Amino acid sequence: MKKHNFYAGPSVLPEYTKQKVAEAALDFAGTGLSVMEVSHRGKEFVAVMDEAIALVKELLNVPEGYSVLFLQGGASLQFLMVPYNLMKAKAAYLNTGAWASKAMKEAQFFGEVVEVASSKDKNFNYIPKSYEVPADVDYLHITTNNTIFGTELKSDPDVPVRLVADMSSDIFSRPIDVAKYDLIYAGAQKNLGPSGATLVIVKDDVLGKTGRQIPTMLDYQIHIKNESMFNTPSTVAVFACLQTLKWLKENGGVAEMEKVNIAKADLLYGELDRNKLFVPTVPAAEDRSRMNVTFVMAPGYEALEKEFLDLATAKGMVGLKGHRSVGGFRASTYNALPLESVQALVDAMKEFEAIH
Amino acid sequence: MKKHNFYAGPSVLPEYTKQKVAEAALDFAGTGLSVMEVSHRGKEFVAVMDEAIALVKELLNVPEGYSVLFLQGGASLQFLMVPYNLMKAKAAYLNTGAWASKAMKEAQFFGEVVEVASSKDKNFNYIPKSYEVPADVDYLHITTNNTIFGTELKSDPDVPVRLVADMSSDIFSRPIDVAKYDLIYAGAQKNLGPSGATLVIVKDDVLGKTGRQIPTMLDYQIHIKNESMFNTPSTVAVFACLQTLKWLKENGGVAEMEKVNIAKADLLYGELDRNKLFVPTVPAAEDRSRMNVTFVMAPGYEALEKEFLDLATAKGMVGLKGHRSVGGFRASTYNALPLESVQALVDAMKEFEAIH
Repeated sequence: MKKHNFYAGPSVLPEYTKQKVAEAALDFAGTGLSVMEVSHRGKEFVAVMDEAIALVKELLNVPEGYSVLFLQGGASLQFLMVPYNLMKAKAAYLNTGAWASKAMKEAQFFGEVVEVASSKDKNFNYIPKSYEVPADVDYLHITTNNTIFGTELKSDPDVPVRLVADMSSDIFSRPIDVAKYDLIYAGAQKNLGPSGATLVIVKDDVLGKTGRQIPTMLDYQIHIKNESMFNTPSTVAVFACLQTLKWLKENGGVAEMEKVNIAKADLLYGELDRNKLFVPTVPAAEDRSRMNVTFVMAPGYEALEKEFLDLATAKGMVGLKGHRSVGGFRASTYNALPLESVQALVDAMKEFEAIH
Repeated sequence: MKKHNFYAGPSVLPEYTKQKVAEAALDFAGTGLSVMEVSHRGKEFVAVMDEAIALVKELLNVPEGYSVLFLQGGASLQFLMVPYNLMKAKAAYLNTGAWASKAMKEAQFFGEVVEVASSKDKNFNYIPKSYEVPADVDYLHITTNNTIFGTELKSDPDVPVRLVADMSSDIFSRPIDVAKYDLIYAGAQKNLGPSGATLVIVKDDVLGKTGRQIPTMLDYQIHIKNESMFNTPSTVAVFACLQTLKWLKENGGVAEMEKVNIAKADLLYGELDRNKLFVPTVPAAEDRSRMNVTFVMAPGYEALEKEFLDLATAKGMVGLKGHRSVGGFRASTYNALPLESVQALVDAMKEFEAIH
């Protein structure tokens, strides 16, 4: 049976990526060896790293003066590395959910953390709009997509201070203006590859300004100088990311991804707004995530939750159970999820409505 | 042509591991999904993590009171995490090479680092034997195998303080007495799997004693409490490590590995001691690594270095070029390297001797 992969992360990858990793697990670049068992300093793997970095720059139109890194440790380690490298004494955070809150916690090691706004009052079901950023902060940190709560900041904000963005779950889903950001980071396991690689895009001249001594592995400048090879990178994960980047380019890049993602989101939110059995958890259309569509049973139909999950599961849908802090359902609709999977979900919702 | 993989790391893996990763890249545990695209919280991947941890405990006979973790960031991040978690004010390090020196550098963030002995005077070509460990240090740190310089501490030392060991390049190559250590760590990319996973074995009751606040991702207690799933682990890398652990168990475990490793080392060092064209760089037999056999052309034959490398390359041998700080050659002979590959190298050396 054809599976429809709605996992929130690690999550659906292109068939191309899976096929290429399967091949390279046995024979990589004609070496007769697995991609897992060749030196990261060998010319074959160096070519992988170089091409992956070049494709990130090409696909996101990264301006001069920025470095692209593939590190380890996920976004969670970036929560620490960002303030270690950028925060002198005071930083601002927009609190849009669990991941933003975790990022704020790590920043508190380094000075004062200003929460410029929070949507916690409504269980993070919206993106705060009007807030002031103090002029004296070292940066403003935003989380562009909130995997758990299904909200997304779908445009690049103009702010009067340095801007840092956790784009773990929506990078490459639309064109972005990298020049508006000073640092972007993203765990790979949504739109890029398997877990184990972390993408960082950083403006070189914002680094080295805190006066703080930084442990070697947490220092972006060390990784830049060593072209992401200060220590052994996660070679298989980076190889897999490269395959997805190639697939992205082959399929029209981020502009085309945005079109498809809008079509998928319109289809699913349209059904959620129409179908009397379901309610999306994010009321404002402009705040609704195109990557993670969160919804619950409508009032009076709560008891049907398990029955719908069973129906969807029987139709090959996996990963639809919502996060415990929201409940209900979450359909993650990353780049590699085809429109037909969203259609299958919508069809299941219509079928369920007809039954009840 | 059959390849003989002498890379120092990432390095040769069992055919079993490569085959299982290739299969799971397309269909993992009967899910119809790739191991790269399923949730780490799903029952299928949780079973992978649980089995990997259980097999580490079984194969190394890990006593009660120890936790086994799979983290990210390689040994290089452990250089930082060890002192962050264990060092109150003073720690002792045995300096046996480049990796030990890097570990010492990170420890200096946290207090006084005592170098109890160093073999730097002879380009790290021996393991210092007689040294005093100050009674008031928080731990002694050793590097059991020195990948670059070809030395190895092949027994478990008795020391009067806490003992921490970087076993990145010889873990699982012989039985060890885990009870003698308080913390063991190892990057996966030698005897365990691909890069991207880091194994840590830590005695629970040595943690939480420094009084220091530790950033979340650098705190072993956080990872223990969350069973290596505080954040998304490097799922493919851990899956691959599990396959190697299964292969290890199937092939007699670490006791059998030690026998084969001794046989391989005896064969290669025997030839190096016999053949007039080559000289091993480590003079003392008891210090010679069974994992990385370093050698150079004998005096008067230096000009033949490239010719021998070309001969070996023509016979399918890869990764034999020595590290720049030692020169000459390095044959890495990890668990998964078959005896026939060492025999092929020895045959090539004999053939080369016959030519000259």
